[in-house]
Amino acid sequence: MYPNPESITRVTSIGAGPIGAGWTAHFLARGYDVTAYLHDASETDAFMSILNTAWISLTDLGLSPGASLDRLQISTDLEDALAVAEFVQESGPERLVIKQALYARMGAILPPSVVIGSSTSGLMMSDIQADCPTPERTVIGHPFNPPYLLPLVEIVGGKKTAPEAVAWAGEFYKIAGKAPLMMKKEIPGFVATRLQEALWREALHMVANGEATPEDIDIALMNGPAPRMVSQGQCMAFHVACGAGGMATNLDQFGPALKLPWTRLEAPELTKELRDRMVDGCNEVAGSRHFEDMAAQRDREIVGVLNALKAARQET
Amino acid sequence: MYPNPESITRVTSIGAGPIGAGWTAHFLARGYDVTAYLHDASETDAFMSILNTAWISLTDLGLSPGASLDRLQISTDLEDALAVAEFVQESGPERLVIKQALYARMGAILPPSVVIGSSTSGLMMSDIQADCPTPERTVIGHPFNPPYLLPLVEIVGGKKTAPEAVAWAGEFYKIAGKAPLMMKKEIPGFVATRLQEALWREALHMVANGEATPEDIDIALMNGPAPRMVSQGQCMAFHVACGAGGMATNLDQFGPALKLPWTRLEAPELTKELRDRMVDGCNEVAGSRHFEDMAAQRDREIVGVLNALKAARQET
Repeated sequence: MYPNPESITRVTSIGAGPIGAGWTAHFLARGYDVTAYLHDASETDAFMSILNTAWISLTDLGLSPGASLDRLQISTDLEDALAVAEFVQESGPERLVIKQALYARMGAILPPSVVIGSSTSGLMMSDIQADCPTPERTVIGHPFNPPYLLPLVEIVGGKKTAPEAVAWAGEFYKIAGKAPLMMKKEIPGFVATRLQEALWREALHMVANGEATPEDIDIALMNGPAPRMVSQGQCMAFHVACGAGGMATNLDQFGPALKLPWTRLEAPELTKELRDRMVDGCNEVAGSRHFEDMAAQRDREIVGVLNALKAARQET
Repeated sequence: MYPNPESITRVTSIGAGPIGAGWTAHFLARGYDVTAYLHDASETDAFMSILNTAWISLTDLGLSPGASLDRLQISTDLEDALAVAEFVQESGPERLVIKQALYARMGAILPPSVVIGSSTSGLMMSDIQADCPTPERTVIGHPFNPPYLLPLVEIVGGKKTAPEAVAWAGEFYKIAGKAPLMMKKEIPGFVATRLQEALWREALHMVANGEATPEDIDIALMNGPAPRMVSQGQCMAFHVACGAGGMATNLDQFGPALKLPWTRLEAPELTKELRDRMVDGCNEVAGSRHFEDMAAQRDREIVGVLNALKAARQET
């Protein structure tokens, strides 16, 4: 029922804010025809300003063949903006009543084969789609700010979403140059924001207790975990750092450290089941790669990142 | 009493593991004469293997003038290893009794003007220095793994440490090419590990609950927060993302979100004092820079990082 995601050429992006404008820039850079729906023509200047700023970075990253700002159309009429849409990225205001009304209208205007992805960071699709007459094709497609640069898109459906629409969205975002994360469940904050929020709350606790300043927090992150986390997420970072023993060694040896007061967040019980999920998960990602090869690859990537940062900082 | 940190040319590195060998590689790459103390000669091969691997990356990052592996000496005699030391980086086993005995010996052997930095990640200097006859010059100098690549060093003294020794260590590590974080208090896990641990525990909760796999966690981190966090820590990322209003807008507008169940870690009460500390701290870091300039700089850096990662991944 849904079209081949490779066949999509026309995207409609709803919203004039940094997220809507960022998505518009991203899809244009990947060679799509994009119609941007703005609520009011007075938003045009601010919208174009974000778009033009994003275009500088997108050009440096490399545009897709045929990509052009000339392939943008702007409309303040929703029916008009959706008329030729083959995919819709919705980045409207983060208020449930507004989104519900918007999905009620979009659900009536758009053919049911057109998938709608929502950029919401704080709402659940099961709530957003409540008044939509055709909710099967509505999914969460949550980007990370700035959406024209960061590859992540978290994808999950609501109660009424068809599994086929969720799978389709995953394929489409990947074709469109994003890194899709297919979520297992609808949970508040999705995955990335939950991780970031845990870190953020610990940071606020430290500042509240006079243990660190905001500057300290940032020095720690930028010079410690971040350059490695670009290359390896926290799971594979621990897996590879523990040598041949991998995540099993990490959990069996450092498991007791989970009881230490190293953060205000209490750890879950390290059951056999959790241990095995972590170990099996890391082994699957590693596949046949030897830990020394993964460590060498990590080091090459960190070197590239540190040299790139140095270059970007000297340019200014 | 302590020498000019610029005058230091001879460093002794204690420990044959990944941290001790990593520190040895770092100091050699920055042009120091380094004596490595190994507990046993049988550790030499593994030690040299780590060193040689690290040297590849350090060469790619750029060696300091005169830096050479030829300036390494290895000793299994502690008195001999410390004989010409002007600074000592201790990366011995993470067991308190072993460290206490080591500091008792080092404290008797070394002139009291030689600062000793400990790589410990889990112990407090107030405990480590308990049996040291000259504890004033003992400080924590905690690196992040891999220590030859990641710039962070967290610095804090114990109860008996002289404030001058802590300040000296901060200056010395900076001269030696590291990014020192001068901690305000001795707290378990220091700053970076606490932040990482909060994130890690939330990740374990998600895996335990079937909300995400280890692969999902890593996809989220590598493609979402990490490429930005290399350029801006979490505080300045929020400050700049909120435009002219900065952190004040973030906290005043999104403060209520701290009550949402977006992670298992409960947030601190957002008091006026905490709000002001966050806002003032971010404004201090920003200085006279306009948020648009900081956003543009962030984007340039993320572009550089993403292009560097792409290049490092295509090489293989």
